[in-house]
Amino acid sequence: MSNTISTFAIGIDIGGTTTKFGVVDKEGKILQQNKISSTQYADIHLFIDELYKKICPLIEQYGGSQHCVGIGVGAPNGNYYSGTIEYAPNLIWKGIIPLASLIQQKFGLKTILTNDANAAAAGEMKYGVAKGIKHFITITLGTGVGSGIVIDGKMLLGHDGFAGELGHTIIRHNGRLHKGTGALGSLESYVSASGVKQTALEFLDEAKETTSLLRHYSSDEITSQIVYECAIKGDEIAIKVFAFTGEILGEVLANFVMFSSPEMIVLFGGLANAGDLLMKPTKEAMEKKLLPIFRNKVKLVFSNLPESDAAILGASALVWEK
Amino acid sequence: MSNTISTFAIGIDIGGTTTKFGVVDKEGKILQQNKISSTQYADIHLFIDELYKKICPLIEQYGGSQHCVGIGVGAPNGNYYSGTIEYAPNLIWKGIIPLASLIQQKFGLKTILTNDANAAAAGEMKYGVAKGIKHFITITLGTGVGSGIVIDGKMLLGHDGFAGELGHTIIRHNGRLHKGTGALGSLESYVSASGVKQTALEFLDEAKETTSLLRHYSSDEITSQIVYECAIKGDEIAIKVFAFTGEILGEVLANFVMFSSPEMIVLFGGLANAGDLLMKPTKEAMEKKLLPIFRNKVKLVFSNLPESDAAILGASALVWEK
Repeated sequence: MSNTISTFAIGIDIGGTTTKFGVVDKEGKILQQNKISSTQYADIHLFIDELYKKICPLIEQYGGSQHCVGIGVGAPNGNYYSGTIEYAPNLIWKGIIPLASLIQQKFGLKTILTNDANAAAAGEMKYGVAKGIKHFITITLGTGVGSGIVIDGKMLLGHDGFAGELGHTIIRHNGRLHKGTGALGSLESYVSASGVKQTALEFLDEAKETTSLLRHYSSDEITSQIVYECAIKGDEIAIKVFAFTGEILGEVLANFVMFSSPEMIVLFGGLANAGDLLMKPTKEAMEKKLLPIFRNKVKLVFSNLPESDAAILGASALVWEK
Repeated sequence: MSNTISTFAIGIDIGGTTTKFGVVDKEGKILQQNKISSTQYADIHLFIDELYKKICPLIEQYGGSQHCVGIGVGAPNGNYYSGTIEYAPNLIWKGIIPLASLIQQKFGLKTILTNDANAAAAGEMKYGVAKGIKHFITITLGTGVGSGIVIDGKMLLGHDGFAGELGHTIIRHNGRLHKGTGALGSLESYVSASGVKQTALEFLDEAKETTSLLRHYSSDEITSQIVYECAIKGDEIAIKVFAFTGEILGEVLANFVMFSSPEMIVLFGGLANAGDLLMKPTKEAMEKKLLPIFRNKVKLVFSNLPESDAAILGASALVWEK
């Protein structure tokens, strides 16, 4: 087998629509990847069977299971301690699914599960911008807001495996309603793709006299991507949307810093593509809200992992020994 | 020596006014204690000399330094990593004081320094209500608000030793001014002795028509203790002050739970004496603001260590091996 390498890991990222997986070497190179549907197999056993059918040939191709250090899985509501997916609202499998043990039994390989945001943090620590950093926080800014917190080189799990739900912390008392959770003023209701959209609609409504490129779109058409595109064209309201979003993000990051005093905060995901439009107001607000002893110490950076690969990389990072 | 015991620790608690110290056995019994002034020795070396003069006879009395496992010190702005007290606004020694190494050199005994809130958490873990608990947070509610966070049985220190400044996290955007830090809406500006006083004054001012026992006191006379005494006599405004204080505390505790998912939160210090007046609204607000996966899981309790002994116990707890 010309493809044989010393060791490799399998990374599986289970999303609401698609499950992606790949063979990853120790340096974080994805040697091969593929995907299956997350919605087509209502019976979890059929889903595992399909994964097995697709992944087994890959394992054989790279030298067989004796060369595979294990299978890492990132999934919404994945619990590291129990290896179960628990009541994930965006997956078709309801209740508590013992995913890690099902995969482990089927493949005969060590399998580690965690939630997708923790997997992202594991990826940053093993392959990304947080390599060698012992204390950091990863914030994933996509449809929702996820977080993975690393303390002294280890994932913070808490007593039940559910630590790091920073997207649901309250940043504005009696603030914006989060339709999913019913909370008022949680981070996720502002600093997410849908939060940015809602802010844009509110700002357009409040400044009816101000012209804006955003007015060329219907409210259904406006997305965080559209707001970004208008902002880089210099649109005043669109720029203000990112300034507001960054200010809220910066304030909440200051709170997180005063909790765990990380050396670095890594921003990842769709919204992170806004670059300086988001980074500048975020950093400014964070530094302003920090106690002096924390100021100008925290490296606030964007992830350097390619967005399309990061989820597989992160999942695979779970199984490498330190 | 009839007093000889197998092993003991020395605990030193450095406060703004008084430094207390004691000999503590492994079970958390303070065998003897004493104190010196924290303000009388402007030269730190003279302070250490005085400590030495007072503590050496105690060590001899209990069998000599071969029986002493070490010296633990709790002090404002004490840094575990560096062993230094850094820019403590309430102490007379300015700048960076290498306290742990000064004591270690003088006594020839292993010396560990940390901030007073972390020492309180160490005390709860070794001797108090958090014995055997691996994930918990201690909140000290006194003149200020301190916090010690324990993750997997270890104190959370962060990359620089300054983790756990929860009293300075922002809970009300553009809220009450904290005169010490200049922050708007930080936890400490509401949930502390002076915060309770200020809330009482504000409520009295807002409800000028409402009779209240608190109106028998001038604004200088009103303290959190007076508000408590009026509340237990059934005074409406005083009760509302604790309801408001508890609501804010509960909300911020919910944020902390979603960060580190502790099994327990321990409340300690002067305000904790308010008992159910504070506990009930705190618990109610915390549960309400938590995501469902965290609800009815966290044990919210008061410390069971005697307030007069807790600081010495906490400091001594730092030096015992696990």
